[in-house]
Amino acid sequence: MKGTVGELGEFGLIREMTSRLTTTPAVRLGPGDDAAVVTAPDRRVVVSTDVLVEGRHFRRDWSTAYDVGRKGAAQNLADIAAMGAVPTALVLGLVVPATLPATWAIELMDGLRDECQVAGAAVVGGDLVRGDTITVAITALGDMRNQEPVVRSGARPGDVVAVTGWLGWSAAGHAVLSRGFRSPRAFVEAHRRPEPPYHAGPAAAALGATSMTDVSDGLIADLGHIAEASNVRINLVSGKVDVPSQMYDIGQAVGVDPLQWVLTGGEDHAIVATFPPDVKLPARWKVIGEVLHPSARPEVTVDGAPWTRAGGWDHFGGDEGDDGIETPGRG
Amino acid sequence: MKGTVGELGEFGLIREMTSRLTTTPAVRLGPGDDAAVVTAPDRRVVVSTDVLVEGRHFRRDWSTAYDVGRKGAAQNLADIAAMGAVPTALVLGLVVPATLPATWAIELMDGLRDECQVAGAAVVGGDLVRGDTITVAITALGDMRNQEPVVRSGARPGDVVAVTGWLGWSAAGHAVLSRGFRSPRAFVEAHRRPEPPYHAGPAAAALGATSMTDVSDGLIADLGHIAEASNVRINLVSGKVDVPSQMYDIGQAVGVDPLQWVLTGGEDHAIVATFPPDVKLPARWKVIGEVLHPSARPEVTVDGAPWTRAGGWDHFGGDEGDDGIETPGRG
Repeated sequence: MKGTVGELGEFGLIREMTSRLTTTPAVRLGPGDDAAVVTAPDRRVVVSTDVLVEGRHFRRDWSTAYDVGRKGAAQNLADIAAMGAVPTALVLGLVVPATLPATWAIELMDGLRDECQVAGAAVVGGDLVRGDTITVAITALGDMRNQEPVVRSGARPGDVVAVTGWLGWSAAGHAVLSRGFRSPRAFVEAHRRPEPPYHAGPAAAALGATSMTDVSDGLIADLGHIAEASNVRINLVSGKVDVPSQMYDIGQAVGVDPLQWVLTGGEDHAIVATFPPDVKLPARWKVIGEVLHPSARPEVTVDGAPWTRAGGWDHFGGDEGDDGIETPGRG
Repeated sequence: MKGTVGELGEFGLIREMTSRLTTTPAVRLGPGDDAAVVTAPDRRVVVSTDVLVEGRHFRRDWSTAYDVGRKGAAQNLADIAAMGAVPTALVLGLVVPATLPATWAIELMDGLRDECQVAGAAVVGGDLVRGDTITVAITALGDMRNQEPVVRSGARPGDVVAVTGWLGWSAAGHAVLSRGFRSPRAFVEAHRRPEPPYHAGPAAAALGATSMTDVSDGLIADLGHIAEASNVRINLVSGKVDVPSQMYDIGQAVGVDPLQWVLTGGEDHAIVATFPPDVKLPARWKVIGEVLHPSARPEVTVDGAPWTRAGGWDHFGGDEGDDGIETPGRG
């Protein structure tokens, strides 16, 4: 596939992109009509949407189109899993400059397709328009499979807090890339392509999780949403939070305490949930804290005290430069 | 609400935007969690997505934020209706510059909400990110209500072609606005805020429609998709296509045959369908042509001959200037 998006034309590019897709039994009608049709056996559909903008959520010199596709799909599919649902489908709204090589859009679609396959879902449709800035808008759907959605507001004092998946790896990879390095590769790869534990979402619902979310903004920030919605205090025990030994080396090299990455780094899309205290959790879940009655107001504490170092953030706040990439965070 | 998006901050703006939303019984879980949950009584969900980019699909000096919201919702909800489904929900991915007045985003949401209400749906979630160009990515969901989806590939020789809704009004309004005028208001308003005949979609399915689409690119272009998918020729009878008398005045003023607007103007989101020849159509449907065996290849003809004047188009083709707004077309 040679040439730019403009040379190939809208319909030619759409044909190339859709010809590469795979399907699943849930897809009753795929791309090519006014809308797609996907099964919703539970009679309820779970839906979540996210937008990635070039220069803010990804950089073409740091990530391939394929990686952007994997990552964009992952963050949406993780939102579905974090409700306790099984992802079924994804649609793509794509803005591309006419001068963009057509292969970029096609490889993006390959990435979306492959990440969907990991989660058991399929790309079922999209829209392609021209614009100056590459913008990737993704909406994912899922099915509850007769479980009740696990919302953020269900945490109760006495519950335990447990997490599964990667924490801080994407932030460490971002720190490496920001300083112009390309290794250690494990962290760089984690930043380029997160691996959310999709199956853990429905499994947590079956285990009786009282609240759940995926870690897109950072562990403390996302637990903050649960604390607020549930009106509780959540206390993390730093000694129970795994900090991989390799992270210490990078931390030392760049002058960051790696615990900060683990507690505040986003975009790994780990899944964190609260469970009743008597729950028996499989080994993949690590208990890292507990739910308490709120003191003055809902909050997240670490070893009993508020976390005063960097963490949590606001897309429109003053803490990012106009030209900068967002620190790893919510996508 | 004073101040810019940057001053209000992401969470403040999201709070303002979601506080204005209304709900429906289909919404089991609205905004504020990892994902929303919407009923899908039919056990199938219909999904469609569209992206609008400022400067290409709308202009802030031509349309208010409220109108952009109405229009953006309308074009997505019309896609759902054109499958024969009933719209249930919509999610919004919004890219906004930090310098944008916060009221713009809030009024956009008001427009989305109100158009959803017209169609019986509700806004259930979204994502808000910062970027240089206002970009509005919308995904709509719908329920089939135990009917089969009416796809583009079902037209058969002998079927009649019928349309309901507005045709060419948005294109005429675009022509007026492009020349710096603000009236006649009926056409300008039609360009700013289409009124798709949502209920006609499911009704057409119940009447036995064999194929259906909404007119987003223009009647000939969209029927072309049906002709191609169904491998048929579709012949329109120009004398049966209503050209409103007021359109002739504008046409004369700007030097355009108004029939061209009616046959090739998009964005009104009329619904066009094919039906078996013995169908008894309610008065709202106007029969404008017939389905024939293809001659050499699938095509749309007008009074037996190919339409050789302007019509149909390609987002990435050379027929639009880099700075221009797209001619009324698919959004």
